[in-house]
Amino acid sequence: MSKNLIGIDLGGTTTKMAFVSPDGDIMNKWKIPTDISDEGGHIVPNIIDSIQQEIKDSNFSIDDFTGIGMGTPGAVNIDAGTVIGAYNLNWVKKQNVRDQIQGALGLPFVLENDANVAALGEYWKGAGERDNDVVFVTLGTGVGGGVILGGHLIHGINGGAGEIGHVTVEQDGYQCTCGKKGCLETYASATGVVHVASDMAAEFTGTSRLKEMEDSGEDITSKIVFYLADNGDILANQIVDRVTRYLGLALGNVANTINPANIIIGGGVSNAGNTLLQPTTRYFQETAFKSVRDSTKLRLAQLGNDAGAIGAASLALQYANKMN
Amino acid sequence: MSKNLIGIDLGGTTTKMAFVSPDGDIMNKWKIPTDISDEGGHIVPNIIDSIQQEIKDSNFSIDDFTGIGMGTPGAVNIDAGTVIGAYNLNWVKKQNVRDQIQGALGLPFVLENDANVAALGEYWKGAGERDNDVVFVTLGTGVGGGVILGGHLIHGINGGAGEIGHVTVEQDGYQCTCGKKGCLETYASATGVVHVASDMAAEFTGTSRLKEMEDSGEDITSKIVFYLADNGDILANQIVDRVTRYLGLALGNVANTINPANIIIGGGVSNAGNTLLQPTTRYFQETAFKSVRDSTKLRLAQLGNDAGAIGAASLALQYANKMN
Repeated sequence: MSKNLIGIDLGGTTTKMAFVSPDGDIMNKWKIPTDISDEGGHIVPNIIDSIQQEIKDSNFSIDDFTGIGMGTPGAVNIDAGTVIGAYNLNWVKKQNVRDQIQGALGLPFVLENDANVAALGEYWKGAGERDNDVVFVTLGTGVGGGVILGGHLIHGINGGAGEIGHVTVEQDGYQCTCGKKGCLETYASATGVVHVASDMAAEFTGTSRLKEMEDSGEDITSKIVFYLADNGDILANQIVDRVTRYLGLALGNVANTINPANIIIGGGVSNAGNTLLQPTTRYFQETAFKSVRDSTKLRLAQLGNDAGAIGAASLALQYANKMN
Repeated sequence: MSKNLIGIDLGGTTTKMAFVSPDGDIMNKWKIPTDISDEGGHIVPNIIDSIQQEIKDSNFSIDDFTGIGMGTPGAVNIDAGTVIGAYNLNWVKKQNVRDQIQGALGLPFVLENDANVAALGEYWKGAGERDNDVVFVTLGTGVGGGVILGGHLIHGINGGAGEIGHVTVEQDGYQCTCGKKGCLETYASATGVVHVASDMAAEFTGTSRLKEMEDSGEDITSKIVFYLADNGDILANQIVDRVTRYLGLALGNVANTINPANIIIGGGVSNAGNTLLQPTTRYFQETAFKSVRDSTKLRLAQLGNDAGAIGAASLALQYANKMN
């Protein structure tokens, strides 16, 4: 089993792909824009074309590969290799992704949820340090999560395991797009941070650059909030305190439930680094039970945008090992 | 593998024991008082004597048994078969339970946390219906929990998995004996319900039998609160609403993390039946993400006081199967 793997990380804007060695090292990586026109009907054909082209350009042949793994938004049916309800891809109806890609490229193909493949990537080659029990939470436009126990993804009875973005952190809190109230996602996603900032700015009466920006209608991003917090802005620090209090609460309670070796925080918001990690850790420690606090570590993700493609490739490897 | 099993459920007041068939049916069950005097030094010798006597009295021989499983309070080291810090047994120092019992009876012996064996019991023969993924929460003097995934107990990296009693449900809430604040245990244990009742009675101004009882200094129990709630007492219903709101929140978030088939509620407080289950389910459904809400079921435990001994016996069976 020394052949290589192909990992695909399908996102609403770009599709990232990589050829990965059996040890998890990236050999080639590239990306293409995700064309979501025509109900997303070009997405899979474009991926197939791009992989065929890259194999040719890099002097590989299809026989150099063991299989293909792919992460996608939406609700994945792993057994069927299909996805439905990936609205940011315009994939409203069921898409037979596996049949198309497996048919065109002739390699075994595994489909998985995008947060789950990122979790696998960090577990395999990133901050997970290959501890068997790892939780991954990604703070992006939304908040996703993946739970790995005993080296394998946990899906739950209906695919709902790892829905850490929808852990309730405030009963009767902010309205979430999922229909619930007070989900972690409504506070700790990039859009959640902006929402918290807007509400807290409206109440804030002191001196703050962030307050001035809000008042003059400038575009506020999560990045700006953390940047200003890092530079001593009082309001920005209050916002970061509120966001990380909810994040630490949610992650502490996840840890009280499964006591993993590592909880890894990734996604765009995690680029704030220690400005995010340090206060989150403090609230995490307030929430975690002693034996949990002493053992479960919070870490920042290490693979950045490569986590998805690497994790998708690891899925192809797991699948191949299971078949042999 | 058609031999029988011995299950031991060690508690602070009584020790329950059972001879269990390989199918999980109780053949004999009996109990002895737990003698915690002399730093708990009589506990294990008394268990050994009692099992030897029962084998004799019931015309079994030691060869009719495959092994022994036992659940205990305190922090268990499963690999070593030891326990430490079981304060309600006066076991402050490390106890070599396995060496003593295995040495005296000559049968393989497995030690486990008490909430975990109760979880195994319900999973095997009770409300778990043998679904592979089951969470058990026991509402007694404290609140304990056990998580079974893929048919096996999850311990986490430091034995802290399943600490559902110490999920934080109210940041800056009631002080918990564990040192944290706002743990589920401080609201939803039997003592927690009494604490909530006392605080809410002090603020209550309407007409209520429970309020009268509080004011006249009568002893209030969790059982009385649920009984009065069932009989229309306004204050008692407000207390039940508050308790079940926290319980539903905690269990909904556990479900958002691992999406088990069943979450089983046991322990003394669960004797309130639907008066507890119905409002807890409502708050659970407010907390659980859609795919989780549609699949994870809340159920009442079915085995009552037998769960621990049956689950302990199942542990002995698992161990024997692993060895063969």
